[in-house]
Amino acid sequence: MESVFISGLGMIGSSLARNIKQGNQQVKILGYDPELVNGEFLISEHDVDQLTSFASGAESADVIFLCGPVDVIKQQITELATLNLKKDVVVTDVGSTKQEIMSVAHQLRDKQITFVGGHPMAGSHLTGARSGRSDLFVGAAYFLIPTSADNAGVVRIQRLLSNANVNWQLVTAKEHDSFVGAGSHLPHIIASTLALSALKTIDNTTVDAKLVAGGFCDTTRIAAADPDMWTAIMDSNREIILEQLNQFNDELKKLKTAIEQKNKAQIHDFFSDAQKIRKTIDRR
Amino acid sequence: MESVFISGLGMIGSSLARNIKQGNQQVKILGYDPELVNGEFLISEHDVDQLTSFASGAESADVIFLCGPVDVIKQQITELATLNLKKDVVVTDVGSTKQEIMSVAHQLRDKQITFVGGHPMAGSHLTGARSGRSDLFVGAAYFLIPTSADNAGVVRIQRLLSNANVNWQLVTAKEHDSFVGAGSHLPHIIASTLALSALKTIDNTTVDAKLVAGGFCDTTRIAAADPDMWTAIMDSNREIILEQLNQFNDELKKLKTAIEQKNKAQIHDFFSDAQKIRKTIDRR
Repeated sequence: MESVFISGLGMIGSSLARNIKQGNQQVKILGYDPELVNGEFLISEHDVDQLTSFASGAESADVIFLCGPVDVIKQQITELATLNLKKDVVVTDVGSTKQEIMSVAHQLRDKQITFVGGHPMAGSHLTGARSGRSDLFVGAAYFLIPTSADNAGVVRIQRLLSNANVNWQLVTAKEHDSFVGAGSHLPHIIASTLALSALKTIDNTTVDAKLVAGGFCDTTRIAAADPDMWTAIMDSNREIILEQLNQFNDELKKLKTAIEQKNKAQIHDFFSDAQKIRKTIDRR
Repeated sequence: MESVFISGLGMIGSSLARNIKQGNQQVKILGYDPELVNGEFLISEHDVDQLTSFASGAESADVIFLCGPVDVIKQQITELATLNLKKDVVVTDVGSTKQEIMSVAHQLRDKQITFVGGHPMAGSHLTGARSGRSDLFVGAAYFLIPTSADNAGVVRIQRLLSNANVNWQLVTAKEHDSFVGAGSHLPHIIASTLALSALKTIDNTTVDAKLVAGGFCDTTRIAAADPDMWTAIMDSNREIILEQLNQFNDELKKLKTAIEQKNKAQIHDFFSDAQKIRKTIDRR
């Protein structure tokens, strides 16, 4: 019987457990989470078969999913390199950036342990095992970062999650981090800066800030997310984020200059280009 | 019988017509729109009683609503100053910026004609008379810019629209333009710049841009709006927009420096302040 160990039973880890279990009842799922309430809930729901310590779960597993924040994943990879893991084990993770993690994972690859970086791009503002869902990943991108030797590892992860209906994306770590930098990290920076800057201005008027248009609410919605998580992300994708911030500033400067110079044709071109490119991601 | 003349029978003008008519069937509504289809539709719906030329509608009205884009409103105010208007007429508009319009409207005030600037902050990406609705303004801010002599004008406009359930906001033109600058114009600039900059980066990866997270779609949604309208707005609120762009750049620079210097405490404070201030406009 195949054993899967999931470390971190929050929304992502618990959703993986549900998917693997629903795909194949024969897989034994071991779980570990420092918050006991998560594990106990999943045991009661029969989504996890047994709660273990990190070390004993890891040592008895055929596949290991590390489902914590990036800094925890990095520590755990280092710990895994000291444990007596099964010879054919496949280790993967769900961290939201990949270059740092792939670099730390050399410790495993040096010992001939297969590591495939992973990132299911799903989630919400909710946390904890109770907010996990078996349909959390449907249609979402699930990035895998294989190395040349890892093809068998990729196949095993994809087989375990064949029920999850994800959109598998095999990319390099750099390509992944560039994609999430532009599609997620930069937007968080920009939305937060806009929320701060604009709402400070509005608080200096007599008008109630709650009267702002719906467009403002959309544009700044993600600024309400957890600052702890986002501080960690800035740290783990620093180089790419700074490069993309420079590109953003270059574009913004072009528009600002056109506004200053009353260059209507250039302003129009800018908005028209933005409209065109934004329409390419319309989902309808 | 009171006569109301509405110039511009698109979404805003036609919604005003519906509201005024539903509030009081005795009010006679005259309408003008260069696109005949708008007027004909409203006649067939009995929301407008009669289509006229601009001049004859204006000269027979007790209250005049100018419901075009800002540049058209400015031209029409100049034209109104040459016409033989009723002595007690109240002129108002729905332009999305107010300082320029209030300044052009001196031509009317010099002739003892009452002008009250207005801006119902409602709308959508739809246009035209068929997209107007009698409930378009419910709960929305409706700004009025009175001058010291205009109290009677304010009362007449509010009485005509007593059925619309708007949130009346009496403010100065500068305060209005500052509010919409921060709550609408700056967000449009930022969302457009983000869409351009981030999607150019993503188009350079092998990952399909449609896989970006929902947060990106929210943050850039308004970038898909009409470039014509937004080019005109940049022109009509230039000073305030440039000032607010500088404030945005100052905030962004603070965060960028903190990321460069790996100053986690400062990055965390930034996101935490943004989260706090963003939560003040939550509507639930």
